[in-house]
Amino acid sequence: MQSRNLTMLVDFYELSMANGYFTNGMRDKITYFDMFFRTVPDDGGFAIMAGLRQLVDYLKNLSFTQKDLELFERKGFNSDFIDYLRNFKFQCDVWAVPEGTPIFPGEPIVTVRGPVIQAQLIETMVLLTINHQSLIATKANRIKRAADGRAIMEFGSRRAQGYDAAIYGARAAYIGGCDATACTIDERDFGIPAVGTMAHSWVQLFGDELEAFCAYARQYPDNCTLLVDTYNVLKSGIPNAIEAFKREVLPRGFRPKGIRIDSGDITYLSRKARKMLDDAGFPDCSIVASNSLDENIIRDMLIQGAQVDSFGVGERLITASSAPVFGGVYKIVAVEENGVAVPRIKISENVQKITTPCAKKLYRLFDKESGKAIADVVTLKDEEIDDSQPYELFHPSYTWKRKTVSNFIAKPLMVQIFDKGECIYNCPDIKDIRAYCQDQVDNTLWDEVKRFENPHTYYVDLSQALWDEKQRMISEYSKKVL
Amino acid sequence: MQSRNLTMLVDFYELSMANGYFTNGMRDKITYFDMFFRTVPDDGGFAIMAGLRQLVDYLKNLSFTQKDLELFERKGFNSDFIDYLRNFKFQCDVWAVPEGTPIFPGEPIVTVRGPVIQAQLIETMVLLTINHQSLIATKANRIKRAADGRAIMEFGSRRAQGYDAAIYGARAAYIGGCDATACTIDERDFGIPAVGTMAHSWVQLFGDELEAFCAYARQYPDNCTLLVDTYNVLKSGIPNAIEAFKREVLPRGFRPKGIRIDSGDITYLSRKARKMLDDAGFPDCSIVASNSLDENIIRDMLIQGAQVDSFGVGERLITASSAPVFGGVYKIVAVEENGVAVPRIKISENVQKITTPCAKKLYRLFDKESGKAIADVVTLKDEEIDDSQPYELFHPSYTWKRKTVSNFIAKPLMVQIFDKGECIYNCPDIKDIRAYCQDQVDNTLWDEVKRFENPHTYYVDLSQALWDEKQRMISEYSKKVL
Repeated sequence: MQSRNLTMLVDFYELSMANGYFTNGMRDKITYFDMFFRTVPDDGGFAIMAGLRQLVDYLKNLSFTQKDLELFERKGFNSDFIDYLRNFKFQCDVWAVPEGTPIFPGEPIVTVRGPVIQAQLIETMVLLTINHQSLIATKANRIKRAADGRAIMEFGSRRAQGYDAAIYGARAAYIGGCDATACTIDERDFGIPAVGTMAHSWVQLFGDELEAFCAYARQYPDNCTLLVDTYNVLKSGIPNAIEAFKREVLPRGFRPKGIRIDSGDITYLSRKARKMLDDAGFPDCSIVASNSLDENIIRDMLIQGAQVDSFGVGERLITASSAPVFGGVYKIVAVEENGVAVPRIKISENVQKITTPCAKKLYRLFDKESGKAIADVVTLKDEEIDDSQPYELFHPSYTWKRKTVSNFIAKPLMVQIFDKGECIYNCPDIKDIRAYCQDQVDNTLWDEVKRFENPHTYYVDLSQALWDEKQRMISEYSKKVL
Repeated sequence: MQSRNLTMLVDFYELSMANGYFTNGMRDKITYFDMFFRTVPDDGGFAIMAGLRQLVDYLKNLSFTQKDLELFERKGFNSDFIDYLRNFKFQCDVWAVPEGTPIFPGEPIVTVRGPVIQAQLIETMVLLTINHQSLIATKANRIKRAADGRAIMEFGSRRAQGYDAAIYGARAAYIGGCDATACTIDERDFGIPAVGTMAHSWVQLFGDELEAFCAYARQYPDNCTLLVDTYNVLKSGIPNAIEAFKREVLPRGFRPKGIRIDSGDITYLSRKARKMLDDAGFPDCSIVASNSLDENIIRDMLIQGAQVDSFGVGERLITASSAPVFGGVYKIVAVEENGVAVPRIKISENVQKITTPCAKKLYRLFDKESGKAIADVVTLKDEEIDDSQPYELFHPSYTWKRKTVSNFIAKPLMVQIFDKGECIYNCPDIKDIRAYCQDQVDNTLWDEVKRFENPHTYYVDLSQALWDEKQRMISEYSKKVL
């Protein structure tokens, strides 16, 4: 998969501009671009960063083919520019927040520094890659938390928005906390456990449900989970499953693994099923539920006493259907003039759309006692937060809201990924990313930030120096246009 | 792209079952599976079929690699079954509704007949491919109709759910009626026009808006569309655009192409902008709008007199965000015993989830005078509808609702795509698919079906023989389980 050449997955305006920059003598103009997002999907309190591995693969493999260059000729691009693309060599510096990290609106999560043509040309792929996987990792994390320790299996490939949505969606879901996937290719390519037993068609093909269950139990006595809702869960599925376990699983020296319910009132059915299985001597036989689940349905089911041990979650996870867009944007924030980064700003009638200018750094402040994250602070690139001294935080809009923190550790959140076009970052193993994510969510975020309804807005503040610079630029541009 | 091997993009249960069928001596059991969907996204009156071309590419290229087979060994599959997969040769018959056709809930849109292992194994990819592209083609068609003849450009790559969602989403959007895309790779691979001019960063990099506009106008005097909302549309963007047109476009013998507004109250701004451009002598300079648009916003804008000539539509199209799932399912409907197709049914407490059994055929009845589609009729596979005689339609649930039609043409809707594993279908050129779609929507669907709110439910009826068989099976299974 990774060797696929996606260099041409660019919005055409990036090429129109690049051609223009080239012919205007600006090809080597050094620029800074930030990726950030404005709101958390589902009104959540935080998101989960994901997709960096695939972004790295893409940036390592940037190259244009002859067919691409011929398209540019037909489009009328400058022939020297086409030669530049023919010999394209990626030269940018890239910093990013590692995968699995909780991230918040308004802070840079990817920063690119390099020749404007290059930094602009990768806009679409930076956004597409990080937006997609962060969307799914964030949703998966909500669902996993709703399940309160129970396993979540990602079952959504058939409803995914394209092949990569299935493949990388399952990867992102695993990072966010899912335990396994139905998507077989993900076990081969990423080592994520691929699981799955039977569809209704297994039962229908045999015609007789008991015969179908017995055949399956003979085939997989040590991993026998039976789908019990082809005809009727309580009157047919469960009794036949119990009979099949007795005939084919126990005699082979195994215990039944589970039953799966894929339709009907699962809360009710699972409680009845639990009792039937217990009465039959199978209290260790687990109950799996699937069928258009999400975090809200799972929480409701558990509140009402559903006897479900693990959940298969499909379309509502793989498309994040309740909020299917992660709205990351990629904005120019500075241009180097004589080696100095001169800030750039985008003004808007819509105040949320005003960008924060300047080359920056991102810190997370952790309380030394509890280990909890107190706030994120965005500073100028060369600023250091001295965590041996008290530090005053203030709200960037309501500046009278102030708070002085002490006894904290200030940790820079972004790591350098590319240095002048060379990759200097080793992407961690996906199991380590998943464990890191779980640790960060469990141990560094306050419960108030993790609430589903009305979560506390985590502080993402600007340093005084960055805030001053932003205000200076807003006043300057306001004077110009008013 | 097409050569990518996606054979392993299967839900693992398909492999668990296939291994079980193999060892149970059922590998050559011939089965029929139907793909159908239950509801139209956004409560629309119809959907648009799309994705068949990519499904064909996948089915032509089915093959397992050594690495895949090693995974199956680790999973403990039967070694003869692994050999079968090593030498896998696709042998199924496939019928499908052609791309661009309006489709309706409850009717087969893909039918697969073949050895159960094979027909089952392709489930995920059949659904994933058709679900995704039909979702986006359907949404694009709504948006295009809302724009009432104006051009729609697909601008959503950066917010798509993965790379294929961008690439094939743009393809599906074009089939549904979009006129162009920002996704450059789609021009190279599919011949869909790729368009795009500048981002805010172009203006920000130059610093001075007029200077940025003049540079762009010099570069592209014959195709000069300027983005006017970096600082302030009416006080800065439009006046600077007019000045740039006068300085750099007119003197070179061209007319200004357009301006684009990407934020603010576009209805209001576009009306003001239109007047400013007209007063400056540029009534032919078009106005492009973008910024989180969809069919509802576009209709509202036009009702309120927005002066917009074309729309760039991003995240809400490429993710179909208001209803991001196309819920196609794939169900076994018959098994051949001694060469005779014996029907199979899935019963459910939820009546919508009861499947329609039997190998089938799908007809669309067109009125001979008006050319309009009257109804779709699902029949047994060997039934013919004789359109020289009156035909009685009846509602499959409320059977007293009856209507006899005459003076109609009965057209079989599905075409055979594969014959015993050989592809016998030439996928049409995408421009022809798009034109066919537009013709079918414009000329064969009644306005009542095309309404956005409360559309008329188009008739999808069963033939008497198919209806009888379904009822017989429901009674039979009800007796068994009750």
